[in-house]
Amino acid sequence: MSNHIAIVGASGAVGQAILDSLHKRQFPISSIRVFASSRSAGKTVRLGNTELVIEEAGPDVFAGIDIAFFSAGATTSRKLVPAALAAGATVIDNSSAFRMDADVPLIVPNVNDEHMGTENLVANPNCTAAILTSVLQPLRQLAEPRRIVLTSMNAVSGAGRQATEELIEQTRVDLAGGVPEAHRLHHVLAFNTFNIEFPVLEDGGNTEELKVMQETRRILDIPELSMSVTCVRVPVLRAHSLSVNVDFGVEVDPEEARQLLAAAPGVQVLDDPEKRHFPMPRDVAGQEDVFVGRIRRDPGHPTALNLWIVGDQLLRGAALNAVQIAEIRAS
Amino acid sequence: MSNHIAIVGASGAVGQAILDSLHKRQFPISSIRVFASSRSAGKTVRLGNTELVIEEAGPDVFAGIDIAFFSAGATTSRKLVPAALAAGATVIDNSSAFRMDADVPLIVPNVNDEHMGTENLVANPNCTAAILTSVLQPLRQLAEPRRIVLTSMNAVSGAGRQATEELIEQTRVDLAGGVPEAHRLHHVLAFNTFNIEFPVLEDGGNTEELKVMQETRRILDIPELSMSVTCVRVPVLRAHSLSVNVDFGVEVDPEEARQLLAAAPGVQVLDDPEKRHFPMPRDVAGQEDVFVGRIRRDPGHPTALNLWIVGDQLLRGAALNAVQIAEIRAS
Repeated sequence: MSNHIAIVGASGAVGQAILDSLHKRQFPISSIRVFASSRSAGKTVRLGNTELVIEEAGPDVFAGIDIAFFSAGATTSRKLVPAALAAGATVIDNSSAFRMDADVPLIVPNVNDEHMGTENLVANPNCTAAILTSVLQPLRQLAEPRRIVLTSMNAVSGAGRQATEELIEQTRVDLAGGVPEAHRLHHVLAFNTFNIEFPVLEDGGNTEELKVMQETRRILDIPELSMSVTCVRVPVLRAHSLSVNVDFGVEVDPEEARQLLAAAPGVQVLDDPEKRHFPMPRDVAGQEDVFVGRIRRDPGHPTALNLWIVGDQLLRGAALNAVQIAEIRAS
Repeated sequence: MSNHIAIVGASGAVGQAILDSLHKRQFPISSIRVFASSRSAGKTVRLGNTELVIEEAGPDVFAGIDIAFFSAGATTSRKLVPAALAAGATVIDNSSAFRMDADVPLIVPNVNDEHMGTENLVANPNCTAAILTSVLQPLRQLAEPRRIVLTSMNAVSGAGRQATEELIEQTRVDLAGGVPEAHRLHHVLAFNTFNIEFPVLEDGGNTEELKVMQETRRILDIPELSMSVTCVRVPVLRAHSLSVNVDFGVEVDPEEARQLLAAAPGVQVLDDPEKRHFPMPRDVAGQEDVFVGRIRRDPGHPTALNLWIVGDQLLRGAALNAVQIAEIRAS
């Protein structure tokens, strides 16, 4: 089988991370073309030591493509994914455009591979949902989760490359005694936190939090799972931190949870109370596995566990997830 | 009544904040002396435009003192508070040394002033507990809270002045391409998060989280309140951010909650979904009030509300709280 590959949105943070994951995991590549908007056409990106020149994306570029990775946002996906599918490509879409379509599988490898059939379009989940379900899935051997209260502290790179550069610039300005400004970011993030910048809905939740709830339920196939999600930006460059309370409705043993997680593929337990060493974004950035620590019983609610989860959202939440889907499809 | 004042721990972040609050609130001062360890003796601090020279603290310095503020940690308080009391001073202690003593009132002004009698020793609560209870107390008019799941994102100044300077230095080094180091802080905090550095107990909670739970129950006088607390350091200079889920056991109306909070002394509602403007540490730093926003029903659990609370922990959680206690006592 040939693997002629296209990446749409190659100029972004996720696009580069997809290239890095393809290279690192030695994904067999017959040929590769990289696309972005006209603004980025002519610029270059790297696949290992190979320089690739970005071409302008359009509906007529997909002839001969076997696998098309989309990471250019929902609007671009809605516009160009049909053309890629019509040209015969398998599309792995990192945007939210098709994630809740009943006939498009929403896949987190190691979590719900069995949801993937022979569809030509596969959706890659929201980053927080991917990281969360990686840890929840192994715990289902204890009991089914009933209710989740989650605070997700999101790294700035989840908002893209320009937002990342802006945080660095804001921090520089602030340290130099100047007044940092927000342009790409919704507020100043340097030495600050803010509720994630997505539109707020009628019920007070925002669209990011809604995605985490809907997609978590769909990936785990637990439609009745009760979820409360608060997503916050923190001045971290890469890797999301999740503070999670999971109620199983029956008493579960934290030690058993620890053992299940230690044995789970794609998950690492880092839970060292002695050294007070638990997962941290600086350590987890660039790592494929999701890290979990502070596995403990909720002292006020014995059927619930508390967990502290850190995952590189550009990898588990996006690029690695997409490349692993391609690996499953190619196998 | 005369107000001869002593501050023990004047060289620290809270000590300076107490001086600032005394000045700003025009607390009537007959005389003031500032104390710290021998290391800081001879250095100066400011009360408005007045420079005060720090003296070495010891058991024999309290003669003639009416009000002694202690903010030098639990060890110093245990050692010197008895001497201050024996000399006839009223002691307002910011450390954790006496907070859970049944005969020492633990007071958050506007929340449980009625717990204060004529005791000569009054304890100032943990910062997160003070900020949290400021918002929970007005909500008790809806119904009694039954269960709380809290993630507290703590500013570095809660770890003291040197920790704050270290975060700034780490950030400078990191931006310059160097390798930041942690000495005062338990881990590198620049562009990072970590679970708070306090010792971890048998059940997996840490001593900070235990303080928040115990003190919240004591301040609200709800011994059976179920609490799950996760305390995290974030790279923020000043003001803690609290993501809170409060289950009342009966359905409550978010709009009614908003009105009660808007009318509560010491609390401001900042809840603007249109502009996606909610409380942020950069805005709240230096403000006496606690700010609350994102007041909404838990979409998966209709008897619970979600809240986003930001409070300057050096003020509401420490200095302002102590000075307001002195005001009540002096009135």
